[in-house]
Amino acid sequence: MFREILEGIVERVGGGIGAVLMGYDGIAIDHFFKPCEEIDLQLAAVEYANVLKDIRNIVEILNTGEMEEVSIRTGRYFVIIRAVTAEYFVALTLEQNGNFGKGRYLLQREAQSLREGLL
Amino acid sequence: MFREILEGIVERVGGGIGAVLMGYDGIAIDHFFKPCEEIDLQLAAVEYANVLKDIRNIVEILNTGEMEEVSIRTGRYFVIIRAVTAEYFVALTLEQNGNFGKGRYLLQREAQSLREGLL
Repeated sequence: MFREILEGIVERVGGGIGAVLMGYDGIAIDHFFKPCEEIDLQLAAVEYANVLKDIRNIVEILNTGEMEEVSIRTGRYFVIIRAVTAEYFVALTLEQNGNFGKGRYLLQREAQSLREGLL
Repeated sequence: MFREILEGIVERVGGGIGAVLMGYDGIAIDHFFKPCEEIDLQLAAVEYANVLKDIRNIVEILNTGEMEEVSIRTGRYFVIIRAVTAEYFVALTLEQNGNFGKGRYLLQREAQSLREGLL
């Protein structure tokens, strides 16, 4: 069920490469990656999980409300990360020319379905 | 000169709260904050500088091109951070209903002027 949601996001977003539903402990629940990509998205998600934990702590210290979304643009990719529950997040990787706005929208919309599946 | 650029971004973006030009060492070169805000933007920028360093290292390890932009959405604010040089970045804080797209655009455009001022 999670895989279908992740695949739907990657296929519909435009320029989608992969998506993963993962815990802040770096352990993935499920993922969908398009074949033959150069970067190790699983490894990337684990690394970003550590950074997310730091950001979440900072957000708590600063008392600026809960962390909802983090996006990272590098020379080659966009990564959009959205909190699903207190323990889990979903990360979507796009090509640089991918549809960033649609990615944010789809993650926001599907976070609810993912959340329901986790409960 | 930096302050005028930062003020211009905050005033034009729509929902802007403050902007800071800062080194990855957490030391600010200049800033412009609207008066009477509840959060300590200077402290926030220092905290985010540490996270940015981590993200930059990850991006290097994963070989996904240089880090260009990071944005963080919390329950109350948007923070958009853009790399200016290898040592400095600019961070813009917006209200939740601020114009995120325009913020990204203005930071991208003004990063060039900031870069020229730093050289």
